[in-house]
Amino acid sequence: MTEHPFLRACRRQPTPFTPIWLMRQAGRYMAEYREVRARYSFLELCHDPQAAAEVTVTAVEKLGVDAAIIFADILLLLEPLGVGLSFAAGDGPTLARPLRTPADRDRLQRYDVADALGYVGDAVRAARAGLAGRVPLIGFAGAPFTLASYLIEGGGSRNYIHTKSFMYHHPAAWHALLDRLAQLINAYLRLQVTAGADALQLFDSWVGCLAPDDYREYVLPHSRRALAGISALAPVIHFGTGTGGLFPLLREAGGDVIGVDWRLDLDTAWAYIGHDRAVQGNLDPVALFASPADIRRRAAAILQRAAGRPGHIFNLGHGILPQTPVDHVRALVDAVHELSAR
Amino acid sequence: MTEHPFLRACRRQPTPFTPIWLMRQAGRYMAEYREVRARYSFLELCHDPQAAAEVTVTAVEKLGVDAAIIFADILLLLEPLGVGLSFAAGDGPTLARPLRTPADRDRLQRYDVADALGYVGDAVRAARAGLAGRVPLIGFAGAPFTLASYLIEGGGSRNYIHTKSFMYHHPAAWHALLDRLAQLINAYLRLQVTAGADALQLFDSWVGCLAPDDYREYVLPHSRRALAGISALAPVIHFGTGTGGLFPLLREAGGDVIGVDWRLDLDTAWAYIGHDRAVQGNLDPVALFASPADIRRRAAAILQRAAGRPGHIFNLGHGILPQTPVDHVRALVDAVHELSAR
Repeated sequence: MTEHPFLRACRRQPTPFTPIWLMRQAGRYMAEYREVRARYSFLELCHDPQAAAEVTVTAVEKLGVDAAIIFADILLLLEPLGVGLSFAAGDGPTLARPLRTPADRDRLQRYDVADALGYVGDAVRAARAGLAGRVPLIGFAGAPFTLASYLIEGGGSRNYIHTKSFMYHHPAAWHALLDRLAQLINAYLRLQVTAGADALQLFDSWVGCLAPDDYREYVLPHSRRALAGISALAPVIHFGTGTGGLFPLLREAGGDVIGVDWRLDLDTAWAYIGHDRAVQGNLDPVALFASPADIRRRAAAILQRAAGRPGHIFNLGHGILPQTPVDHVRALVDAVHELSAR
Repeated sequence: MTEHPFLRACRRQPTPFTPIWLMRQAGRYMAEYREVRARYSFLELCHDPQAAAEVTVTAVEKLGVDAAIIFADILLLLEPLGVGLSFAAGDGPTLARPLRTPADRDRLQRYDVADALGYVGDAVRAARAGLAGRVPLIGFAGAPFTLASYLIEGGGSRNYIHTKSFMYHHPAAWHALLDRLAQLINAYLRLQVTAGADALQLFDSWVGCLAPDDYREYVLPHSRRALAGISALAPVIHFGTGTGGLFPLLREAGGDVIGVDWRLDLDTAWAYIGHDRAVQGNLDPVALFASPADIRRRAAAILQRAAGRPGHIFNLGHGILPQTPVDHVRALVDAVHELSAR
């Protein structure tokens, strides 16, 4: 398995072609996924290891991508804290009891990761069995900042006023909260490696809302703590969006591979990150609404910017959108494989 | 008036202190504004030159900032096209008849800028009289891309799927639409200068959703057309958010001053833009929810990164949020003036 192109690219070793996988490749845009979801709510699907493994493997089979990612959600880690997590149909997640004051932390329940999230380990084992070595399996977790933003806002946010206000006005409680999240994340990533995950992605999806000075002071130590010792177990992809001003700091926090969204050119980003790290990206998810010929042209432009340098994993800059035509996704995968064949 | 610090900074001439103004400085966070809004709807206020001038001037008097910006909205330019513009209380703008196909362009009404938007010129004249030369007055317009995104989406958007799909699938209609918008914008900016605006800001607020290649192909020529000949009349500030990957292209499109949001350090951004342009920014609007002492510390950090180099206008990275404490805004203005005094 260590010789698979995806894992070789994580380690910046030469590969016969540029490996590709897509964030949210098992998702609503795919008919097979919608069929499974007709029988399960989103959380039921996450909680059922066999069903989660099934959609994980199906996505790989339908798309021909070079890695699987375990079907789960970054907020599963918050659920055992007792915050009232739910996913309404078509909407984003909601936490019934957001954390708005330092005192609110007292009602967060203590839990043991192996007990409360063992079902994700079971899903990883089942998916690995289903994949039968065809492609590596990626495990993942949300990063301390992004998880804290959901905990404090109670859902998605446009401006993160509650999150940043908590950070500014209650720095001790903020650091204690993020330290606790970082410890849970670290244990959760280890659990997934033990279950058989071949690589791991840390999703700091919303960290791009922060000024670099705030990231350095309020977030970096906790992301580093979340990743402590993990790269020695499996390659780590450190992902965020809107992070063009944060790359040196993300890198400092950890990760063998740094995620790059579509808002800057891949070569510019890679030079800024440093060529001693691998990169993952960076097609605009909305580019998949263009024609297959146009998608191919855009894939070629990104591959050209990567210039064949070992250590590029092709991906979108964020997750596949639900309205995306599935045949366009397949056209992208095929184009990347053909155009990058060496 | 040409000797005022704000205008000197636009031209990268030395100033006795760093000038500051704030996007949306006349807005809901301010009691005096809310009192006026109790008597006028948002659009009524925009349409009434005396009332618009009053809130423009009041903001300067309450805050002690170094420039006024005419009270108006970038979408006023779309209203005479007959798209059914409205602003619901507490929500963003809505266009009742968005433009989703090339054929939809046929029902956009033709209009003469001087006739249809002459009331903004009247507001500029009234505001200038009210300011009596105390500080310069900034006029503004939305940029072709941002205006097109509202036209096509029918309001704000998260992913700009309709806008980008239109761009990808109907490039000829896209370019014709943006060319028409660029001509209207150019005439509208000239109208404001003729009425007495001392400087102009082009708001490409949402252009940061684009990959650089898409900006170059689908947007740059139109932003350049919108700004053609304008810098010869008054200094131009070219503003966007999330544009860390677009700076060289924004600069190519035009502008004496380039706006920088809070997602990257001001010194990094300025080096990337080039020191032969002035910069405006770059405090996180949410930082105004921190304590005044903390706000002062953050202002000092930004001023330190500007390093006293001529050509820095202090501002937020985006507009003041409605929940912002007004005394914190005043604390910021005072801190910038004190800390930058040379």
